[in-house]
Amino acid sequence: MSPAAKKPAGVVSGLAEIAAGTSIPLNWTSSCFERIARREPEVEAWAHLDRDGAVERAGGHIDNGSLKGLPIGVKDVIDVAGMPTECNSPIEAGHIAADNAVAVQRLIDAGAIVLGKTVTTEYAFMAPGPTRNPLNLEHTPGGSSSGSAAAVADGQVPVALTTQTGGSTIRPAAYCGIVGYKPPFGTVPNDGLRLLAPSLDTIGLHAASVADIAAVASEMEARPRKVDGVTHPKFAVIHLPVEAARNGVNTRLMRDAAERLRKAGAMVRELDAPNVFLDVDAAHRTIMSPQVARTFAEIYRSHRDVLSDSLRGFIEQGQNTTDHAISQAHACVARAHMAVQSLITADEILLCPAADGEALRGLDFTGSAVFCRPWTLLHYACMTIPAGIGPGGLPLGLQLIDPSPAGDCLFGPAAFAESVMSRKFTSGRIQ
Amino acid sequence: MSPAAKKPAGVVSGLAEIAAGTSIPLNWTSSCFERIARREPEVEAWAHLDRDGAVERAGGHIDNGSLKGLPIGVKDVIDVAGMPTECNSPIEAGHIAADNAVAVQRLIDAGAIVLGKTVTTEYAFMAPGPTRNPLNLEHTPGGSSSGSAAAVADGQVPVALTTQTGGSTIRPAAYCGIVGYKPPFGTVPNDGLRLLAPSLDTIGLHAASVADIAAVASEMEARPRKVDGVTHPKFAVIHLPVEAARNGVNTRLMRDAAERLRKAGAMVRELDAPNVFLDVDAAHRTIMSPQVARTFAEIYRSHRDVLSDSLRGFIEQGQNTTDHAISQAHACVARAHMAVQSLITADEILLCPAADGEALRGLDFTGSAVFCRPWTLLHYACMTIPAGIGPGGLPLGLQLIDPSPAGDCLFGPAAFAESVMSRKFTSGRIQ
Repeated sequence: MSPAAKKPAGVVSGLAEIAAGTSIPLNWTSSCFERIARREPEVEAWAHLDRDGAVERAGGHIDNGSLKGLPIGVKDVIDVAGMPTECNSPIEAGHIAADNAVAVQRLIDAGAIVLGKTVTTEYAFMAPGPTRNPLNLEHTPGGSSSGSAAAVADGQVPVALTTQTGGSTIRPAAYCGIVGYKPPFGTVPNDGLRLLAPSLDTIGLHAASVADIAAVASEMEARPRKVDGVTHPKFAVIHLPVEAARNGVNTRLMRDAAERLRKAGAMVRELDAPNVFLDVDAAHRTIMSPQVARTFAEIYRSHRDVLSDSLRGFIEQGQNTTDHAISQAHACVARAHMAVQSLITADEILLCPAADGEALRGLDFTGSAVFCRPWTLLHYACMTIPAGIGPGGLPLGLQLIDPSPAGDCLFGPAAFAESVMSRKFTSGRIQ
Repeated sequence: MSPAAKKPAGVVSGLAEIAAGTSIPLNWTSSCFERIARREPEVEAWAHLDRDGAVERAGGHIDNGSLKGLPIGVKDVIDVAGMPTECNSPIEAGHIAADNAVAVQRLIDAGAIVLGKTVTTEYAFMAPGPTRNPLNLEHTPGGSSSGSAAAVADGQVPVALTTQTGGSTIRPAAYCGIVGYKPPFGTVPNDGLRLLAPSLDTIGLHAASVADIAAVASEMEARPRKVDGVTHPKFAVIHLPVEAARNGVNTRLMRDAAERLRKAGAMVRELDAPNVFLDVDAAHRTIMSPQVARTFAEIYRSHRDVLSDSLRGFIEQGQNTTDHAISQAHACVARAHMAVQSLITADEILLCPAADGEALRGLDFTGSAVFCRPWTLLHYACMTIPAGIGPGGLPLGLQLIDPSPAGDCLFGPAAFAESVMSRKFTSGRIQ
């Protein structure tokens, strides 16, 4: 393999090399750009690259923050000062951000180097960008954080910022075989984010491992996210009342994961989602669409013809949603939360698929978020753990959900699950 | 005292008499109307009375439901089939409801008799109705559930339906010396409620005792609300970062309550509200006002000149609230919830004043909801327990808040607190 093809270091190993003096930030950033130069024509993960700026920043003085020299990608709905935020829409073409989003600033303050902006679907909704799944270029990388997932999975950058309003972080991580993390709603400020639905939008991360995520999330959430020490985590496989949950691949994935986690020392039980979950998916749409109608009110007035059919239709759905439907949807969320809370035990982590099977062929549809929307709606932290290869030869993702009231139980069990499930990755396929 | 002045039975005692055959529903309903006839000219608690209909229903066949023959009042923002829902606004004058609200229907199905509609402030926002505090006619009964609180406190009806979006159930109960109950958000459907802010509006109850509330709430929430058995409840006095919390009367109320509860066998500790509570009150406004702007969009277009200044101003504030402010407010709520959850122990009930001191003199202002808004915003169940007489000779209310994730810990500790605090009621004033 040529030097340009060599993948740059991951977050933890790269930071360790810099701390030990065996590498310097400039090398890390340069190796990313070498990989990008070689792969970008095929993968198309980036909406904007700032090679000169990044090389200059990486070669200059960086304070000894916890992320000193870490190259990062930023989804193109999140502002980076001096770079475009174009949201994959012609409406935003040429818009240059004046300030860093708070999430970005926190990482820069810790020593991170922004390489550029990663491709998003149109405004982080459904209409796809050009990005391809680096594991099979004819397949979608998932969305809406398409470029972040593809760039990280392809080793072009060790970590990238994402967002999730439905399943936009968890699903592309599953499709690309990496780790995805959606923090509990509210721990990462949304200042500098192009909003879609303010009560749901959550900035998250893609990286290669739970430890890599933890290092970056600790700075982004401004609270320590620790991976160490859980030897007998408690898991509950939760069966959602959706058709995809009865799909063979998803069923086998969950059976395989439960068995392997149990053998490794975890407690794993099965849980049927409470009946109120029959209404949760509709409640997500009922709560989200009027918020999108509001955030896009001005654009809808002035540029509706430039919007995709999917986004325009969703806005119109939001405009026509009754206040009583919204009231019922909020009640549904509250009852779903109380029902989950009365079912779980302390520190228990829920498990379900991260996506409906493998990445679909074709780039038109970034896949279903049916396994993600309930947890986004409930504001719970979620994580994708690579969990095997499906019958089509592409990755499957296991989703861990943290329903703990304080939202601080996820990382230990996630590291445990990763160490267990990663063994599968080289050993065979889930047929 | 003349027969007409005799107060009708409370919920539990009246139901027991009917079950034992020592009374019949018609007697109970008739005794309410006798009391109403005598007192309504002074208290003005009712927006609409249906004496003939109620007497006919009470005298006819009633199935043996758990609330057989119970007379109830219904706040005039909640639909009762065939009665007006006028919301104390000329805009709604003459509007007759076609169907019962679900909350009302559940009580009727259990055997309740609706006597009429109780006075609300304009659309359950701030502009007051004519209702007076029955304990001192020159003072406000509180709001927005003004008529419900006054009618129950005056013994005109044993229980009345209320709503709360800020402090509209908890505060008037405190001012009138009765028990108020706001269920956890989502357990009582809002169908048939004139909405103000769909993510906050909660139908609740006013009654004379925790046991009375429990009997009715069990039907209204369609889940058993039990009062029995807690001998050593855990309480935490939570100090909110608001000026009213440092007011002498409120401070003395909480000190007195803590001492008395402790002596009676409760564990009581002191807790400073986490720093994020500095932003919670503003977050309530930021989340509520755009929702009110949406629910009142059509009325604002067609009748804005008929709205009170306070409601019109609030709608306009909501119209001008930015999506980023809304996003920050939602994040604030999520962080406040996580912070509370990480502070409390299992089954612990929070305590703070139910209102800022006693009911104010005059009817123009129904009082501050500063002690209530945080908990409404967090969707927690709350209850007012009468807790003594203030320096002005009017009641003070203790607020119990249930932060438990499943929302099912309130009634036992509330009954305990009631039995402790009611002793005070006859013994002296908190100076």
